[in-house]
Amino acid sequence: MTAIDRGMPRPPSPSSHSAEEDRPSTTSRSRPFSGTGRYYSQGLGTFRVPMTLYGHNRARVVESMIEGGSTTANIISGGGGGGGGGGGDSYDTDHEPVFRQESYFHYLFGASRYSDCYGAITIPDGRSTLFVPRWGVDVATVCGPCPDLEDVRGELGVDEVLGVDDLGRFVEGEMSRMIAEAEEDEDEGRGGDDGDREEKRGGGGTNSRPKLYVLRGLNTDSGNYASPAHFEGIEKYDDMRDDETLFKCMAECRVTKSPAEIDLMRYTNWMSSMAHVEVMKACRPGMMEYQLESLFQHHTYTHGGCRHMSYTCICACGPNANILHYGHAGRPNSGRELASGDMALLDMGAEYHCYASDITCSYPVCGTFTDDQRAIYECVLAAQACVIGRLRPGISWVDMHRAAEGEILRGLIRCGVLHVPDGVSHDDDGGDDDAIIGEMIEADLGAVFMPHGLGHLIGIDTHDVGGYASGTPSRSDRPGLRKLRTARVLETGVVITVEPGCYFIDPLLDAALSDERQRRFIDVDRLNDFRGFGGVRLEDNVWITADGCENLTQCPRAVEEVLDVMKGGVWPREFPCRVS
Amino acid sequence: MTAIDRGMPRPPSPSSHSAEEDRPSTTSRSRPFSGTGRYYSQGLGTFRVPMTLYGHNRARVVESMIEGGSTTANIISGGGGGGGGGGGDSYDTDHEPVFRQESYFHYLFGASRYSDCYGAITIPDGRSTLFVPRWGVDVATVCGPCPDLEDVRGELGVDEVLGVDDLGRFVEGEMSRMIAEAEEDEDEGRGGDDGDREEKRGGGGTNSRPKLYVLRGLNTDSGNYASPAHFEGIEKYDDMRDDETLFKCMAECRVTKSPAEIDLMRYTNWMSSMAHVEVMKACRPGMMEYQLESLFQHHTYTHGGCRHMSYTCICACGPNANILHYGHAGRPNSGRELASGDMALLDMGAEYHCYASDITCSYPVCGTFTDDQRAIYECVLAAQACVIGRLRPGISWVDMHRAAEGEILRGLIRCGVLHVPDGVSHDDDGGDDDAIIGEMIEADLGAVFMPHGLGHLIGIDTHDVGGYASGTPSRSDRPGLRKLRTARVLETGVVITVEPGCYFIDPLLDAALSDERQRRFIDVDRLNDFRGFGGVRLEDNVWITADGCENLTQCPRAVEEVLDVMKGGVWPREFPCRVS
Repeated sequence: MTAIDRGMPRPPSPSSHSAEEDRPSTTSRSRPFSGTGRYYSQGLGTFRVPMTLYGHNRARVVESMIEGGSTTANIISGGGGGGGGGGGDSYDTDHEPVFRQESYFHYLFGASRYSDCYGAITIPDGRSTLFVPRWGVDVATVCGPCPDLEDVRGELGVDEVLGVDDLGRFVEGEMSRMIAEAEEDEDEGRGGDDGDREEKRGGGGTNSRPKLYVLRGLNTDSGNYASPAHFEGIEKYDDMRDDETLFKCMAECRVTKSPAEIDLMRYTNWMSSMAHVEVMKACRPGMMEYQLESLFQHHTYTHGGCRHMSYTCICACGPNANILHYGHAGRPNSGRELASGDMALLDMGAEYHCYASDITCSYPVCGTFTDDQRAIYECVLAAQACVIGRLRPGISWVDMHRAAEGEILRGLIRCGVLHVPDGVSHDDDGGDDDAIIGEMIEADLGAVFMPHGLGHLIGIDTHDVGGYASGTPSRSDRPGLRKLRTARVLETGVVITVEPGCYFIDPLLDAALSDERQRRFIDVDRLNDFRGFGGVRLEDNVWITADGCENLTQCPRAVEEVLDVMKGGVWPREFPCRVS
Repeated sequence: MTAIDRGMPRPPSPSSHSAEEDRPSTTSRSRPFSGTGRYYSQGLGTFRVPMTLYGHNRARVVESMIEGGSTTANIISGGGGGGGGGGGDSYDTDHEPVFRQESYFHYLFGASRYSDCYGAITIPDGRSTLFVPRWGVDVATVCGPCPDLEDVRGELGVDEVLGVDDLGRFVEGEMSRMIAEAEEDEDEGRGGDDGDREEKRGGGGTNSRPKLYVLRGLNTDSGNYASPAHFEGIEKYDDMRDDETLFKCMAECRVTKSPAEIDLMRYTNWMSSMAHVEVMKACRPGMMEYQLESLFQHHTYTHGGCRHMSYTCICACGPNANILHYGHAGRPNSGRELASGDMALLDMGAEYHCYASDITCSYPVCGTFTDDQRAIYECVLAAQACVIGRLRPGISWVDMHRAAEGEILRGLIRCGVLHVPDGVSHDDDGGDDDAIIGEMIEADLGAVFMPHGLGHLIGIDTHDVGGYASGTPSRSDRPGLRKLRTARVLETGVVITVEPGCYFIDPLLDAALSDERQRRFIDVDRLNDFRGFGGVRLEDNVWITADGCENLTQCPRAVEEVLDVMKGGVWPREFPCRVS
């Protein structure tokens, strides 16, 4: 592969959403988002992210806060530090990880390359102010010229850019103004119809008091808390400060994606899909697992401008494919030289301008499936197809998880690993039987072979926020279901991964064999054929549309597609042109 | 480039140090390091790191602690967490950076892929015990089987491997044993010649009391502190605990490298040098800076098994080359599409098994130097050659910095940027003049064009520890010199980067023009030719040997070598075979 290949197919052009659709609806007290029509791009043919995307995000948050009863307030959000990743330097050294912006801050400001920033948004007018560090000659020598505030304003399309040293004064000015206006309103109110006025403000009298919203809340995937922004003197506003509302509101806004966000995620998916294809073509016995990771990273960076992976690549071959978190600390994709009988399970996705993709391909490293490999592959493929075929607004994700389990169990019956116990009536037409599948699921047998959730929300975070937001179904405690990162009923605009898998994990198989509820369905001899098999997972990123869904991922999936690409066949088979 | 290229030249084979040399000297109370002859390797043709390297490191530390007066003690060291890099998850999310072991812990145990571990070493016998996490079925499902303790012991060559849950009990047992032995000794001592016995123990009576050494100390590069290991119940040993001695001792041990460490650093340098050559061949106008980073990373990972860079790549082209910390947050190697008149300054180095390399190449992206580019390149090359030619034990690093400044100033005189002020006598034979150079240096003119230090210690950390350890020369406050990360007098075994540079940084040039001490040497018109030039830096990693030094880096450096490689010439010109 050459370092530049301008001849490769480009991603689909941005879809046909009109500018009208990109514009959020506005209430009478909020105003359209600002934005200068500027774009972020990594140059060459990489995707041009319109900064209006983030103006739209801000407007959505302001609108949602107003709908929630906020009247006059400042939102203060703090970005990530220069140390990168939020964790600062490595241990005690001066080694800084590569900077990646904090996700909530990025959602609001799209300031992917500005560290140590703060941002403020006023309610109800939605005015946005970014505060960037200012430095002297000493820092300028090593970090380059201090950003020019007006340039940053133009680049990001915010209303105003100031230095971080202005933040305290800015908040003081804004809060004073709001307090004065509130008091004026109150004075006027005493002469008029108080009840009517209070009602307009969204309820109780306290709501008319200006507030200072900062971001704090629990990430239900990590168990970590988002840290609220802090600046010198913030304690002056303790009685006006609200640490909770903003997090809930923003998490909910982030769950459903705008058309502009979808265009960006279509790009990250395209670029990662094409990198998977590149790896699929290069993969062969004798390579080390990490060489597949290296090629994927190189392809998405050099052709797609993606400096960050969405998560650590999982390149698990042969038996390693049953280690779900392979690739991490103890198993750094270096455990195996690929053997000709191995299945590869490659879970890799790049991000661009902080928006993620998360894609898994599985295939035989030698380019030919054995019968058993094909059987397992096809049952996972059937599970994925079944779910994607049913996805639309109103569908419960828990039901989809069960549907996927059902398809996998059917496949395992077909290949003889599972069977109908003696004495249970069974449809003999070579087929499955809903009642039997229901019994197997009731016995938690699905979770033996697919011990993870069917998929998760994805956006700026790979495991995106809002999975178990208040007001949504809570986490089940059943095996399998309890691993789901959301139990939501899907709605238009959600992007979710569909990643069924089938694995043969010894401790889980052994536990199943010692559990009579499960053992009676298992053909032990046949199961033993699959010890050491590893596993198969297929993962696509799917956008829920008004009347169904769109699969953003474009990898070869059908058996013949995979084999054809591994032999050098072109992909995609048709150029994915979108007419706008 | 193909993903696997088995035909490429391999690094020099390990040098001719005999096994005898690898063995540390031992005192009567310490014992030879343990080790099973196992190796760490990333497979294929990647370097095999002998685990005896770390046994040797442990023995050095124990020996050094004994020389410092320790008699009976336990050293407890804590490794890095699974969150990677010491910083844990990114912000509030569950995104974990790729794990990299903590450096001090790695120095002692070489446990590069074991997170959340502890280690203990007993003094004086040097017995090593590693404590690894144990997990249940739930974790085993996602992380793979729990490590088998005996396997880990064999792999790493430590004396014993236990679970982390055993750490408290282990320390309790060891400390009790040591206390009992000390009391026994004391009792016996009362009957004999106390003074003599105390003297043998290294001085004051308190030294015979068992101690618990943990690691805490200031990293003089980052200003951060190493955090001491902690376990439940450690407060029981507060009166025996020593937080300071171990850090000082280990930092000093890490400064001089063993032959086995040098072999490993020779490999990281070889692999990074060859990746620089690959980038040099691929580099051409029209590429983006980050594509050079991507290619370097891919090459070192796929051919060398290097998952981590030693630091964030700096790929600075054209004017960006004068931003010393280019590549970081605000300047993520995406600022420029390479233009044909650009110089590229590429500072990139990979690490292997946590040992770093740190290499900078500079060259014209179109493969031809302009006269001015060549002039600046050659003055930096002269500075590097001058320093490397003089390096040997006993040389002061501060003197080397001044020597490099002198060569750069001479070069700037030759190309007309600097001149001899009117009224100052000057050797007209087209040459330089030591007195004039001395005056320029006295006026801090060197730091205008090379505002960073000449180089730094390198090892497990890129900016390795011990730069300003107590007992070594302290940091100067003079411009230029104050940026040095060490002011040591060099000794055998030190590895240090030699990285002179010459830059045209506007704020520094402007400051110089407004400082009469400096301005009088500057030809303002000629200087202005170089505004926007960027800069040149050449960086090699050099090992101080008993009678001189060995350059571990193997990049094309002479002008004709660089141009030849850019035209496709082979490199290295001779296969770097070492006869053992």
